[in-house]
Amino acid sequence: MLPMAERSAYHHGDLRRALLQAAAAEIHEVGPSAISLRSIARRAGVSHAAPAHHFGDRAGLLAAVAAEGFRRMNESMVAAATDSPEPLLAIGRAYVAFARTNPGEFAVMFRPELLGSDPDLEVHGAAAHQRLVEAIAVTPGATCNGEDPSVTAARLWSLVHGLATLVITGSLPADDDLIDQVLRG
Amino acid sequence: MLPMAERSAYHHGDLRRALLQAAAAEIHEVGPSAISLRSIARRAGVSHAAPAHHFGDRAGLLAAVAAEGFRRMNESMVAAATDSPEPLLAIGRAYVAFARTNPGEFAVMFRPELLGSDPDLEVHGAAAHQRLVEAIAVTPGATCNGEDPSVTAARLWSLVHGLATLVITGSLPADDDLIDQVLRG
Repeated sequence: MLPMAERSAYHHGDLRRALLQAAAAEIHEVGPSAISLRSIARRAGVSHAAPAHHFGDRAGLLAAVAAEGFRRMNESMVAAATDSPEPLLAIGRAYVAFARTNPGEFAVMFRPELLGSDPDLEVHGAAAHQRLVEAIAVTPGATCNGEDPSVTAARLWSLVHGLATLVITGSLPADDDLIDQVLRG
Repeated sequence: MLPMAERSAYHHGDLRRALLQAAAAEIHEVGPSAISLRSIARRAGVSHAAPAHHFGDRAGLLAAVAAEGFRRMNESMVAAATDSPEPLLAIGRAYVAFARTNPGEFAVMFRPELLGSDPDLEVHGAAAHQRLVEAIAVTPGATCNGEDPSVTAARLWSLVHGLATLVITGSLPADDDLIDQVLRG
């Protein structure tokens, strides 16, 4: 149980959200392997029992951070692709933009070996992947002749994921024109 | 200065190499932001003064790990591409294979913000990039019509880097056929 003061100071859901934000910031600073539930509680200004209460252990917390990342990435990809004349380009841009503005979430979303089991993670991760598959299906020329659609999806996922990774680490410049040219090719 | 016992127990260069190997293993385990010179010295079985003596500080050590990574990645790309009928495919395969077998080095090679200044890093990093550019130049159809070669290089680098990253984290299966199909498209 959490101290009474904590339960009354936060509305339902707010403490969980505050912990997820603190965790993402901490992951960005020290990396996903070096975070501790205790330092996240300290950062969020709550008792050290709060993270364990909400997420069980570190793998559970990281899974929740990743699930929330996929949920919001998916939301921004849907918003970008809807009514876009180039949905695949729009999704690629949204993917890179998400990585740039959410580096803590992005650092754990594609690290399945670090994540505990979490139904939200499965739902939101699958939904994000589905956006990419749908955008490929409506884009002429995205698939090489006679190729299995899963290979096309793996190729385009590799392309946007590599681009996002190289841009957020500063290996490639964060230049919107370059990003568009890379994604359009 | 290092203790006399250490200087005599290692041939010239061997202590440095042992420290780089210990650092790569430690980076793979806890992430590049969480390593300490002290724990690397402990892992290599040498005095805690040894890493500072050889590399100055953590940024210097990480730069040396990255430089050694680029040197060896470049070596394996040259070996793979020489006399290959498909040099670009050969280089892509070598890049992914290097990431799989050298996860500690790979985790710092593309993190310029973590790395101290190091002439070897510049030389070997530029040489590895040059391999990719040369392979593109001799591959028909690699460049989209009239496109700047630096855009093609950024696109193919993003593709192989994303593929390597997703394979080593288990997001995509480590399946040689899939890797070839992704790289060939």
